Amino acid sequence: MATVGIIGAGQLGQMLGIAGRHLGIDCVFLDPAENPPARGVGEVIRLPFDSAEGLAQLAERCDVVTYEFENVPVDALSKLPADLPVYPPPAALRNAQDRLMEKTLFCSLDIPVPGFRAVDSVADLEAAAGVLGLPLVLKTRRLGYDGKGQQVVRGTHEMGDAIAALGGKQLIAEQWVAFDREVSAIGARSVSGEIAWYPLTENVHAGGILSTSRAPADAEALEDVARAYLERLLERLDYVGVLALELFVTGGRLLANEFAPRVHNSGHWTIEGSRTSQFENHLRAILDMPLGDTGMQGQAGMVNLIGRIPANRVPFEGRNRHLHDYGKEPRPGRKLGHVTVVTRDPHERDRVLKELANHLNS
Amino acid sequence: MATVGIIGAGQLGQMLGIAGRHLGIDCVFLDPAENPPARGVGEVIRLPFDSAEGLAQLAERCDVVTYEFENVPVDALSKLPADLPVYPPPAALRNAQDRLMEKTLFCSLDIPVPGFRAVDSVADLEAAAGVLGLPLVLKTRRLGYDGKGQQVVRGTHEMGDAIAALGGKQLIAEQWVAFDREVSAIGARSVSGEIAWYPLTENVHAGGILSTSRAPADAEALEDVARAYLERLLERLDYVGVLALELFVTGGRLLANEFAPRVHNSGHWTIEGSRTSQFENHLRAILDMPLGDTGMQGQAGMVNLIGRIPANRVPFEGRNRHLHDYGKEPRPGRKLGHVTVVTRDPHERDRVLKELANHLNS
Repeated sequence: MATVGIIGAGQLGQMLGIAGRHLGIDCVFLDPAENPPARGVGEVIRLPFDSAEGLAQLAERCDVVTYEFENVPVDALSKLPADLPVYPPPAALRNAQDRLMEKTLFCSLDIPVPGFRAVDSVADLEAAAGVLGLPLVLKTRRLGYDGKGQQVVRGTHEMGDAIAALGGKQLIAEQWVAFDREVSAIGARSVSGEIAWYPLTENVHAGGILSTSRAPADAEALEDVARAYLERLLERLDYVGVLALELFVTGGRLLANEFAPRVHNSGHWTIEGSRTSQFENHLRAILDMPLGDTGMQGQAGMVNLIGRIPANRVPFEGRNRHLHDYGKEPRPGRKLGHVTVVTRDPHERDRVLKELANHLNS
Repeated sequence: MATVGIIGAGQLGQMLGIAGRHLGIDCVFLDPAENPPARGVGEVIRLPFDSAEGLAQLAERCDVVTYEFENVPVDALSKLPADLPVYPPPAALRNAQDRLMEKTLFCSLDIPVPGFRAVDSVADLEAAAGVLGLPLVLKTRRLGYDGKGQQVVRGTHEMGDAIAALGGKQLIAEQWVAFDREVSAIGARSVSGEIAWYPLTENVHAGGILSTSRAPADAEALEDVARAYLERLLERLDYVGVLALELFVTGGRLLANEFAPRVHNSGHWTIEGSRTSQFENHLRAILDMPLGDTGMQGQAGMVNLIGRIPANRVPFEGRNRHLHDYGKEPRPGRKLGHVTVVTRDPHERDRVLKELANHLNS
């Protein structure tokens, strides 16, 4: 069987590695961290993500390369041998790394987005505010994640500080969207071009970090539109692997926010809640196997365990609950684990999610 | 989180280890094999199962000990520190290792069994044949598995040879059962005494080795009786962990054949086909967590890959199929992997199982 090289050995790499173990696929990881979560499921090459030596070692040991986070330097991937497949394709990564390219791509695919403008100065921002209105969200074009690299700008007086706080240039101003809710459309496309979708997932963020997901989202009327957007994106990018498209729901419409060229936190519920997890389907896609059935197994929910895992784990361990502990050192804002809830009834799922949220906040 | 010590690092150990990885539970294995399947999910102490040094190393590293096969020497377990929990309890192991004790236990629990007699000589066997009729099955009391250690005795003239072939004594003669089908009842009991059951699984053996399983078995009328038997057994043994009770169905009745004090090949379908796999529930049980939901996810089937995995893996990789490759060297009669099938419709499941069987035999 094939060996998969994975750049990054965090929890997403760990869950890919676990899926690989079942399939008889070895995963080898590249990650400089000392005790990364994936260490328990495969060998970790302890070198930086962009290290020529590390990438050479990875290339030597694997048949295909993938990555578990979108801030992999695209230039680093060009250090890999030309005949070694890299999935998702680096072009997808490049588009996902730059919010301006990403939004422009959405527009070219007729996928609606909030209004946006490139910003490199206060003058640019003032002009953007004239078109987009205030408040608006100012973001770095590159390297943002989990709400980092963003500032809400409420008035002209805040503009200078906001720009300075974000490094002064290479920014993007985005229209403020008073969204009703957030959903993600997760799909996979294989080397052969086969596409599979998961039901829409509804997400709730807290402090810029995903806190809770529910699937299927109570949004049947939007499924077809979201899938059409996802499919356009997958096709245009000649994409291979799992992709997550994050969307705002506002007034019954969908606006694309961003996409992640990788398995995604909002799809963690698929491990227990779907016939085939996003992790197994990512491996199937990049190894050109047929994609697995994405049918639901019930009503699924997911709660992230952020910063600390309470000493009392009993509420995470009930019969309709599945605790995932990534084995990471606690640190504020750090994703340490998650709990999946799968029930027959959506009200029961929501009751359990509430119980878990209460426990986390107690 | 806890560390679980597992005696044996075969595919059952591997699948326990995979379930552990999600829960954040480390597994450490004791196995003398050079490249055992579980090596990819935890440290393997490469010493014999009954080695005092190996057991001491295992004990030092773990909080609870379990095992993945029933031929672990019970005496070896007594070398473990007295304050280290061993689950399933060694008394269960002792009963499962000796077919005479096992059958006697079933009788004492009012669980029907085929007629049986202890045999240590041709005279014993002749007497047994007088009561049980011919043909009968002569088995070693201990250390049989996958059809090994068994002889069908059709007439008086075969008795001497059959006894000699099985070592001359410590044998058991069992009544020949022209069963309609075979099923297994798989359940778990936790340290606290909570019990969970999976739906009955129907099994087909070939050459003494499990070849195909289907769940739920088309045997609703027998579910309650099977569960009652399973529950009696779990309670009597003060059992902790997963147990599989194999039963013959004959004329609408159930006759107990044997039980395995461990996760079981006939429960492999639970990885994709149940909300909680037998492997996760075994860990939950021995760590005294609440047991996970054993609700079905559809119509499940499983085909073992024995002796060789065909070079053409395409039929194993369809959208409703999940290939598990244990990474073992091919060898005749060896279990190298399995394919799980999960469908919405039982006829579709049976069609796919047939397709897989045809591919394996082609």
